[in-house]
Order: sequence, then C-alpha cells, then structure tokens
Amino acid sequence: MRGNSFGRIFRIHTFGESHGPVIGVVIDGCPAGLALSEADIQPDLDRRRPGQSAYTTSRQEEDTVRILSGIRDGFTLGTPLALVIENRDARPADYDPLRDVYRPSHADFTWMEKFGLRDSSGGGRASARETAARVAAGAVARKILGEYGVTLSAWVERIGREAMPPDWGPYSREEVDRHPLRCPHPASAESMAAYLEQLRDEGDSAGGVIRCRVDGCPPGWGEPVFDKLHADLGKAILSINACKGFETGSGFEGTWLTGSRHNDAFVRDEDGRIRTATNHSGGIQGGITNGMPLLFRAAFKPVATIRLPQSSVNKEGQSVIVEAKGRHDPCVLPRAIPIVEAMTALVLCDHALRQRTARL
Amino acid sequence: MRGNSFGRIFRIHTFGESHGPVIGVVIDGCPAGLALSEADIQPDLDRRRPGQSAYTTSRQEEDTVRILSGIRDGFTLGTPLALVIENRDARPADYDPLRDVYRPSHADFTWMEKFGLRDSSGGGRASARETAARVAAGAVARKILGEYGVTLSAWVERIGREAMPPDWGPYSREEVDRHPLRCPHPASAESMAAYLEQLRDEGDSAGGVIRCRVDGCPPGWGEPVFDKLHADLGKAILSINACKGFETGSGFEGTWLTGSRHNDAFVRDEDGRIRTATNHSGGIQGGITNGMPLLFRAAFKPVATIRLPQSSVNKEGQSVIVEAKGRHDPCVLPRAIPIVEAMTALVLCDHALRQRTARL
Amino acid sequence: MRGNSFGRIFRIHTFGESHGPVIGVVIDGCPAGLALSEADIQPDLDRRRPGQSAYTTSRQEEDTVRILSGIRDGFTLGTPLALVIENRDARPADYDPLRDVYRPSHADFTWMEKFGLRDSSGGGRASARETAARVAAGAVARKILGEYGVTLSAWVERIGREAMPPDWGPYSREEVDRHPLRCPHPASAESMAAYLEQLRDEGDSAGGVIRCRVDGCPPGWGEPVFDKLHADLGKAILSINACKGFETGSGFEGTWLTGSRHNDAFVRDEDGRIRTATNHSGGIQGGITNGMPLLFRAAFKPVATIRLPQSSVNKEGQSVIVEAKGRHDPCVLPRAIPIVEAMTALVLCDHALRQRTARL
Amino acid sequence: MRGNSFGRIFRIHTFGESHGPVIGVVIDGCPAGLALSEADIQPDLDRRRPGQSAYTTSRQEEDTVRILSGIRDGFTLGTPLALVIENRDARPADYDPLRDVYRPSHADFTWMEKFGLRDSSGGGRASARETAARVAAGAVARKILGEYGVTLSAWVERIGREAMPPDWGPYSREEVDRHPLRCPHPASAESMAAYLEQLRDEGDSAGGVIRCRVDGCPPGWGEPVFDKLHADLGKAILSINACKGFETGSGFEGTWLTGSRHNDAFVRDEDGRIRTATNHSGGIQGGITNGMPLLFRAAFKPVATIRLPQSSVNKEGQSVIVEAKGRHDPCVLPRAIPIVEAMTALVLCDHALRQRTARL
Repeated sequence: MRGNSFGRIFRIHTFGESHGPVIGVVIDGCPAGLALSEADIQPDLDRRRPGQSAYTTSRQEEDTVRILSGIRDGFTLGTPLALVIENRDARPADYDPLRDVYRPSHADFTWMEKFGLRDSSGGGRASARETAARVAAGAVARKILGEYGVTLSAWVERIGREAMPPDWGPYSREEVDRHPLRCPHPASAESMAAYLEQLRDEGDSAGGVIRCRVDGCPPGWGEPVFDKLHADLGKAILSINACKGFETGSGFEGTWLTGSRHNDAFVRDEDGRIRTATNHSGGIQGGITNGMPLLFRAAFKPVATIRLPQSSVNKEGQSVIVEAKGRHDPCVLPRAIPIVEAMTALVLCDHALRQRTARL
Repeated sequence: MRGNSFGRIFRIHTFGESHGPVIGVVIDGCPAGLALSEADIQPDLDRRRPGQSAYTTSRQEEDTVRILSGIRDGFTLGTPLALVIENRDARPADYDPLRDVYRPSHADFTWMEKFGLRDSSGGGRASARETAARVAAGAVARKILGEYGVTLSAWVERIGREAMPPDWGPYSREEVDRHPLRCPHPASAESMAAYLEQLRDEGDSAGGVIRCRVDGCPPGWGEPVFDKLHADLGKAILSINACKGFETGSGFEGTWLTGSRHNDAFVRDEDGRIRTATNHSGGIQGGITNGMPLLFRAAFKPVATIRLPQSSVNKEGQSVIVEAKGRHDPCVLPRAIPIVEAMTALVLCDHALRQRTARL
Repeated sequence: MRGNSFGRIFRIHTFGESHGPVIGVVIDGCPAGLALSEADIQPDLDRRRPGQSAYTTSRQEEDTVRILSGIRDGFTLGTPLALVIENRDARPADYDPLRDVYRPSHADFTWMEKFGLRDSSGGGRASARETAARVAAGAVARKILGEYGVTLSAWVERIGREAMPPDWGPYSREEVDRHPLRCPHPASAESMAAYLEQLRDEGDSAGGVIRCRVDGCPPGWGEPVFDKLHADLGKAILSINACKGFETGSGFEGTWLTGSRHNDAFVRDEDGRIRTATNHSGGIQGGITNGMPLLFRAAFKPVATIRLPQSSVNKEGQSVIVEAKGRHDPCVLPRAIPIVEAMTALVLCDHALRQRTARL
Repeated sequence: MRGNSFGRIFRIHTFGESHGPVIGVVIDGCPAGLALSEADIQPDLDRRRPGQSAYTTSRQEEDTVRILSGIRDGFTLGTPLALVIENRDARPADYDPLRDVYRPSHADFTWMEKFGLRDSSGGGRASARETAARVAAGAVARKILGEYGVTLSAWVERIGREAMPPDWGPYSREEVDRHPLRCPHPASAESMAAYLEQLRDEGDSAGGVIRCRVDGCPPGWGEPVFDKLHADLGKAILSINACKGFETGSGFEGTWLTGSRHNDAFVRDEDGRIRTATNHSGGIQGGITNGMPLLFRAAFKPVATIRLPQSSVNKEGQSVIVEAKGRHDPCVLPRAIPIVEAMTALVLCDHALRQRTARL
C-alpha cells in the first residue's frame, strides 16, 4: 500500500533510509535451486556505487552486500532472500541546516505533506541511495533470466545537448563501461565529459536519455490488458529517481509515421521462426513479447541539487536561498544505467514466472 | 496474475471479448455512500463510442451501461459494482478469414504464442473495445474525485504531422469536444481533419500525441518508491492500446535543460499556500503530488489496421497478403481521449484512498 | 481491500446482492485451453440451489449460470471468465418491514456500522445467496483439479444432536446425495430428518458439523509460512456464512494425545512411494501437502432466522420483537456441502498453480 | 506467492532460517507518526524467547531486536520498518545427522517435495523460530491498536488432559504470566506442570488449547465476503506452527444448540450503545465486529519432536529410527501465547486501517 514492493511472483520489498544503518531488500518468490552468492550481486552494486569517477558524488560507500537468508550450501531455498548493504559513510548531521528547508525540485515538501514528518538527512528514503536495493535484487533476477537465455544492457545516449548517433545496439556491458559516462560511442562520450565539466564549473547539472535493449525473450511474456509488458516496464523505469519519460519501440518519434510505414511486417526466418522485418513495436505487440529484441528509451531530468544559489521557502513558508554543499552527482545518468537494467530484469523475471501459469 | 485488474484500494477487474456477449467491469473498493446511477457513466461511454463521426469506425454500438450490483436507492453500498455493456453489433463471422492470419503490428501472433489459442474475432480481448470497461469504471472514479475537488481533461495535441501550438491548457470538456477530433485549437483541428481525409483516401492511418492536465489534487498523493504517482500514471496510460510513450512535466524535452533552468522554485502564494513558480515537475515531486496541476503527454502509434495491402504470414508461417475490410478508425486519438481520462481518474482515485492510511 | 476477491493466481471476484438483478463472479487466472461450458458448472449450482427439498428455503431460483466471457469454441482463452446467475425470485419489498430492524445474530447491525448504509433486502450481500458465485467458480476450479487427478467430497456428519459414526470416508457425491440431508449414513440421515422436522414445528433451527476429504493431491502444495495450505483452507471455509470453526486432521481432538501417539510415522509403500502410517496430519505437514488425503471438519452454527419471536432493537435502539416470515432454511448444512467443496477446490487450484513457480 | 507476507495495508514480510544469521521482518504500511523504539518490541520477544523456564527448549537466544529503518527521532516515518533478530546460538552442525531423515510429523519431507532441496538445520524456515519475526511485528501492531483503545490477551486453557475451568476472562498479561505455563488459573497450572514433568520423563510431549479475547474493537471492522474478520483471524492463527484448529465464539460447541438458544439478542446499554445480551457470535457478525469482545479458541497438536524412538524413512525411502537429541519444548503452548497475540494484533491493525477506506 505504501509502494515499497514490486513484482507479483518474483516480488521485492525494499527498506532503508539514505543515512540510516542499512539499505536492504527482501526478495520473495525466487525459485528454489538457483546457484547464488554475494559474488553474483556485488558487481552490479559496484557499477552503481558512488565515488567511481569524477562525474559522480564523492560519498564513500563500499556498498558491500550481505545475504542474510534464503541460501544454503550455495543454492536458493525458495524462501525469502534478505539482502542488506550497510551505510558506512552516513552523515545525518550534514543535513541539519536543511531540516526545515524545501529544496527546489526535491521531494522535501511533498514527503512532508504526505506523512506529516520526514527524514531530512539526505532525503531519507527519497534519496537515490534507495536504488542500491533495486540493483541488488535486479542482479538475482538477471541470474534467473540467464537460465532463459535473456541478456540485457542499457547505455547513455545523450547528456544535455551532447548525444551519440541514434542506434539500438546491442552493446555489451564491456562496451558500455569502457567510458565512465557509460556511452558506448567514444567520441560522443568525450563531448559529454567536456560538457559536464563545464557545467560543474558553473555549479550546474544536466539530464539526458538512456536506451535499453533486451535480447532473447521468448514470445508470450506480458499480461494484457493492464500488465502489458511495456506498461510494467514503463512503471518500473518511471519509478527510478529523476525519470520523467519512457517510450518503447518507435515511441514519440513513431507518431509522425503513417500506419503503412510503421507496421512491422511478419516474415519467416531462414530457420522457420516467425519474426518481424522491422521492429517499431520494440519487441512487444499487444503487451506481449513477440521474440524480437525489446527496445526502450528513458528521459532523466537534470539533477536537482546544484551549487548555484536558488530561491525557495522553508517549512514556515518564508523565503530562503538554497546552495548545495553536500556530495552530489552533476549527472545521474551513468549511475542510472545499472538501475535501469535492474528494474528491467525485475519486470522480465516476474513475467517469465507468470507465464508458467498461463496454459493448462 | 493475468493482468485484468488495476488499482489497489479502488480496484477494477475487467472482462469480455470484442465480439462476445458483453464487455464488463467489477469495481471493488468504491466507498459506500456515493450517489451513483447509470446517468453518471453513460456520457463518458458516449464519448468513447464508435460511430460518432466520419473519423471513427462505423461499428454500431450504443454502449449502454447497466449497473448489476452495488447500488441501492441511488447510493453505493460499499459492495462491488458490476457494470456491463452489451455487444450488440458483434459479428464474429466477419473475422473468419483472419482466423489463421497474423496481422502486422497486431496482437494476433503474440496472444497465440502466449495462450496456445486465441479469439480471432476482432482481436478478442486485445481489441480496443476492451477499453469501454475502463471508461465506465473511470466515470465512477471521476465522481469520487469530484468530492475532492479534482478535475481533469485530455485533448489531442498532434495527429501525424499536424499539431496545435504547445500549451498546457486547461481546456474544458466542452472546448475539447467542440471539434470531433478533440483538438481544442480550431484551426489545427481543421488541418488534422484534412490530413486524416487524405490518409483515408490512401488507405493509410495516423498516430499522434495527447496531453492531459489534472487540477485540484491536494499535496501528498503518490506512494514512493515504486508506486510513485507518475509511475502509476505511466503504467495506466501505457496500458491503453496503441500507446507507446509517456512523459510527465518537462518530459523528454526537459532533458535538454540544465538543473538551474529546470528546477521549480518554491514560492509562497498570496493566500499563504506554498506553490512552485514553474511546473517542470508536472505537479509531482519524488512521486508525490505537490498541489500544482498534473501534466503529462502520451504517444499513440498509427492505427495498425489499414486498407493498404501488407505482407505477413499465417499460423503455418506461409506468406500472405493482408488487406483490412472491417470497420476501423483511421486514427484512434479522438476516441482515446476519454480512455486517457478514465485511466487517469482510476489512478488518482486509488491514490486518494491510499493516502487515508498514511498517517496515524 | 473490501474482501470480495479470493485466491492469488486462480483468483475470483464476486459481486451481487441477494435481491439485486444478478449474482456473479469473475474468474481471473484460469489457464487457457480448458474445455469448459455451462454444463460443467450447472450441476454444482443445482446442488446448492434453494427449493430442493423440504429442508431448504422455498425461494424459487433456477440458478441458471451463463458464461459471459473467456470462452471460445468450447475452450478457455486465458482471459477472465465472467459468470452470472440471475435472481429471478427477488422480492425486495418482502423485507421492507425489516429495513430498520437489527435481526439477532444477523449482519444487519454490523453492515450498518461498517458502511453507514445497507441493502436490507434479504441481507443484501450478507445473504448466503452470495455463495452461488463461489459454487460456480468452484466448479471451474474442480475441473482443473481433475487434470491433476484430484477428487474431493464433503458430507454432513452431524446436525444438532444427531450424528453419524465418525469416519473419514471417502464418500462419493452419489453416496452423499442419496439422502437430501447429504449425510451418507442412511440411519443417521433419518434421525437428522426427524430432528429437523421437530425443530421446524417448533419454529427453531439447528447447526452441525461437515467433514471434507480430498484425494489425489501430490506432495508439495501449500506456501509456508503464512499461506500454509490448512491456513488457506481454514480461511476459505470460515468465510462461508454461519461457519464458526475449522479443524484439520486430528484437530481439537488430537490435542488430548501425546506426541508419541499423535505423530504420523513415515513408511514406504509397496510401490516405493513414501506415505504415513496414520494421518493425524490430515495430509498437510508444515503447511504443505504430503500426498495423503486431506481431511478437515467445519462447524456451522444454527440458522439465525427462526420463526420463534425474538427480542431485538431497531436502528434507533428501541426494543422490537422479530418474527421471521420469509423463506429460510431450518438448517444450512445440506446446502453448505457444495459451498465447502467449492471453497476447497478454489484453494487447491490456486495452490496447484502457485507450485508451478516454486522451483527453477 | 511464496506465502511469506501477511496483511493488506499493515503488511509484513518475514525472512530468515532457524540457523541462519538472522530472523527478520519488514513491516510496510505502518502509519507515520507513531512513537516507537526497540523498547516497545523487546518485551513481547522476551515472552516468546526460549530458555525461560523448565518447560521450554534450552536453546540460548537473547532475541534482541534491532530496528534498521523507518524511524527517525523516535517516530515512524511511514516508510518500511525492518526489524532483525540475530541467531546467536545457531548450531547448524547439530542437525547434520538429520540431513537425509524425514522426522515424523515434521515438515522435512514436504519441504523437500516442494522445493527439491531444503535447509535441514533445525527445520530452516519451517522451525517455530520463524515466529520471532511475527511477534516483533505484532508488537508494533499492538501499539497502533492501543491508539484505538483495543487490548488483547491469550492464555493456556488446557494442556493435554489438564484443563482450567472454561471461562472467557479477560485476563491481564500479568495474570497470564504469573505461572510460566501461562494458565491464569493457579491450581490448573500446577496440574499442567505435573503432567508435563511426567511426559518429559517419558520422553513424550503434549498439545492443548489456547483462548484469546480482544476488548475495545469498535463495530465495523472486517471485510465480507471473503475477508470476514474471523476468517482472517482463523488463517492467521492456523498459520502458526502446530495449530490444527480454530473456532470463534460458540465454535464447535455451539453447533449443539438450537437457533433460539444460540442467537444473541440485541439490547440497548444504559449508555445508549447497542450491544448483545449473550456473545455466542464472539464479537463478530457477518464477518464484521459488533463492538462486543472478540473470543476465539485454538488447538495446538502435541510437539512432534520427542525423545522416544520413532520409526520413519530417509530420503532414499529406507527405514530409520529417529530419536530427538536437540533442544526442544515438551509443550509449545506457553510460548505460543505471544505468537497468538501477535497474529491477532496484525489482523486487527490491518482491518482497522482497511476500514478507513470503506465510506465516502
């Protein structure tokens, strides 16, 4: 009811505040018999971890995951997996001056209105630190998807005004991670880096666009009419901090085409498999996978925390000037990549299990 | 599990195939004591109904709603409301030639892969006829929202290449409905009409973009971290047939801005209320309403059913040519307006009730 | 949230008031590909139907079920099945004198307190007429269970002071239905009948105990720790009108034994299958089926509606005398048999599908 | 789906194996603004803790609870509360000889059949140690119920053949805890103690019956038709390890009465409040509270683990003799008292919040 759970069969429950003792997640519905250890999860957390490069916050967190339940002798038991990550560099006192201030385009005001009180330390649970739990759970989901032959990867397509040429990849994790900005097109990544440095000097920030592609989904995943696969993916991605838009396949661009140009003709593969000649559908038709690669894009707004002074109000409604002092990312997109991948994996793993009950 | 339910407290369950006896919905969780009759629902169904203008399918359906339960002496009892709409112009035999054909960019192939069998008559439950149930339920949700002082309206911003000037309204239902294409800008509506006529002559179809605005939501609605209000809205809208993209507030466009330009400064109203100077947030911050108008846009792909011949395959994978003969919309956007409004109302009504349990 | 849905994967949503136009149910999650028609459902409804014998209410209802969706060419589509049963002998006006009276041990007072208004006609949705929807849905569940080789039957063990010898059967439906009181022990059935006739002459009513047995469940169904199979069965049975107690296996009696006498020793069958020598566990250990027959008993209170005058109060709290005039059962147990079976089938079918997702 | 969650609005998710690092629970849906600290929870855990008396297992666990999230400055934030209890005296190696043995009337065999593998150490998650998490969560629920004026207590009515005189109390926690067997009738408690000592000498065990009473519930809690309050209570209690039966109000005994004797006449209190003259209904009518005390009884089977040798089989189906060596309770009832109370509180707290959405 309070929105901290996600999924239907492969279902996660996250908890933890940004500057509390831990961030964590309980994964319920993980099938029994999966080989799993912390080593399967840690690499994804390392990708999301702060302090990886000059472009991300300098908060020092090792983000070491510990599995507290659900495993015995290296295999999942079918019981809940509880994963926790300690907050080591928690500094709640840093935020005392912000206790009664509503930072622009942050969730301070709205959480206060919702609950009547709030954890002002680093945004409490409104902080992007919450997404560490998603990434941990997503790593487990991805391992299960591996059993189905599904692979997925996301990358940065544009930061502010700097974009790479439009392209649906696929790009491997190695190609994406070659540059710390997680743009697989080297020249564009350099331009993005230069642009971000300029913004940082100015005390400003940028947003941008992420692409994601999934290969290997069999046809039949997705549950019309409300839990269409792209609708569930949309919700999953839009629930990530700072995400403002989601589109699948041809998306907003496709609305300029006529039907005759937009429709994906069915053809028979050389190996007899039915596929489509184009993929404007983004691998999903009527809310169900058709066996083609899944394709979607997501918009992330510019980071709200900036060094430039901004006018705002405090709890009493008095005018104040806000100037950020803490440790913050000038651009969230590179660190959002593992989060986008995690949410995608969570949706797909859940739908893979749901499909097991569709036929007699 | 099969995706036919929506909402958590105000929860709907829809049923019915396009050419079966009825389309229907059970609404569970409607609070007791709401004055309600068919007359509250019928006008919204009339807006969605086919055969309203030259731009929509010629299928003849009166779409008369009947309330089968949950009402006594004109008030809701707190028990489930079952609403049914008869399919009077059902012609399943019309679709016999399509029984084994996979129409391009339709859900024929994917439903077959999912369930192993399918209702080929007009797409069965993959048909947009299913949305009549949503509109009926949405009318009830809207009536409850009226008690909170919430109003909402959607309109057509662009059809194919013809757009009205960008603008967040608000537009009243009367302004929207003045032109059958539901674009409140008369000159643009005329251009759209001309464009659609040309496409119809060519046997082709168009997509476009819809805007929606909600006024009067109090601050505090929305459930982080996964059920952020814009994430739930996104899922709701993306679950509508043909919808391929969703964005809230500044959306994809906003990603070109820097943080200093994008942030919404808090100010105090003349009446002491806290509001924001701009509304790039689209009325939602951290997934929770902030009291400003909710703003979002949605992309709808061009109609898949066209008169122009298209190449495809049948169940056996043999090449076939598909030419639509049935009764179909050349553009779904005008009829999607009441559906977008209904899904929006369903999400908001549910969150209004959820908020009742947030505080001690 | 309002308690009108049951099940997780095989999930039902019921609706309808006792004297409204229909009683109905939407079944969501029925796997695609099940051969199904009204003929599979009607016999179970006929067993529950009023007016079958001298011992049940004289309300005349044919209880003809109609499937409104989810079927094509005789097979389930995987989409929601909507089943409706018309209320033909609805006589809401019969209850006008009871509009403001709170009948003893009925739900009049509590519904009023809950919702602030209520449907006073025959109890509205608090009436046992609501269970027709359960029986209809249960028939579908039973058909699916048949594919797993599961069979189940319930029977009347005791009515008031008249009991058959304790025995776990099994009894076939034919054996149970031989006597209209649904007690498979003929002499006891006759004593029950005589006792009921005496009570009817006195204007009084009786309760009693029902036994149920399920054969053929494979080991592995049930979901600890909260959705243990007997816990879900207990909730299912306790949710039937007038049910006041539930026990599984040795139940309350077994608490007099010591562990050494109560424990069920495991042995190996002649065909190598592991089974238990006794079945105090009632086929469920740790909340999961062990392959032995499921056994449980349920207590039903005496019918609240009696002809004898009773003192009560009205809405204003004034003393009144209540004397039943309507059409009512002197004993609900015979008609509760198909309801107990239906709820049992619903629980088991749901858990059968849940088990499909337990292992990698 | 895997049965580790309970509740709808006030919802808990438990995790942890008996001999893993922790037992824990995430509570989601706790309203914001509740004063809460570990000191509110620890006393309930201390009541359930092993090693309290000669009648309980000698496993040494302090069961110290730690709140990992959801609290700031002593008040709940409205975000998930994660509570963990370390397993300090975990001795997984103690159970190695039992790895492949199916203990009689334990869950070893069924868990193996369900998941294909299992944690053999002390039963893993099938162990009653799991209930520590329920007790911790129940303490939070009870604190919320305190705001509504609700109080509740359970006590031991019978152990094996030794019973106290039948009586619905109420008994305060102090009265119940006066004797370590948690029977508030001193002479009966002594007989129970003597009986248990005899059984222990014989290497045997006992079951029994617990009563529970709740005072102060306002009318209107409970959600017909499936989530009737006593049905939800029944499920809650039946989901506790070793529970085999549940009855509310007059229960099984009441089925011997006629309607005229069983019905609870409504009367008006001296202060104008409507109440019933008797309480065979156990405070619940039609599944909804009527303002009278809630009354129920629960049956707990004799402890399955006994020192006496028992015949069983191992994984390969070979005959084996099982003799318990570990640390186990000869009778679970005294320690089940706080668990029964916790589950009752969880159900009531959830329904209290659900009722907030029943009316316009």
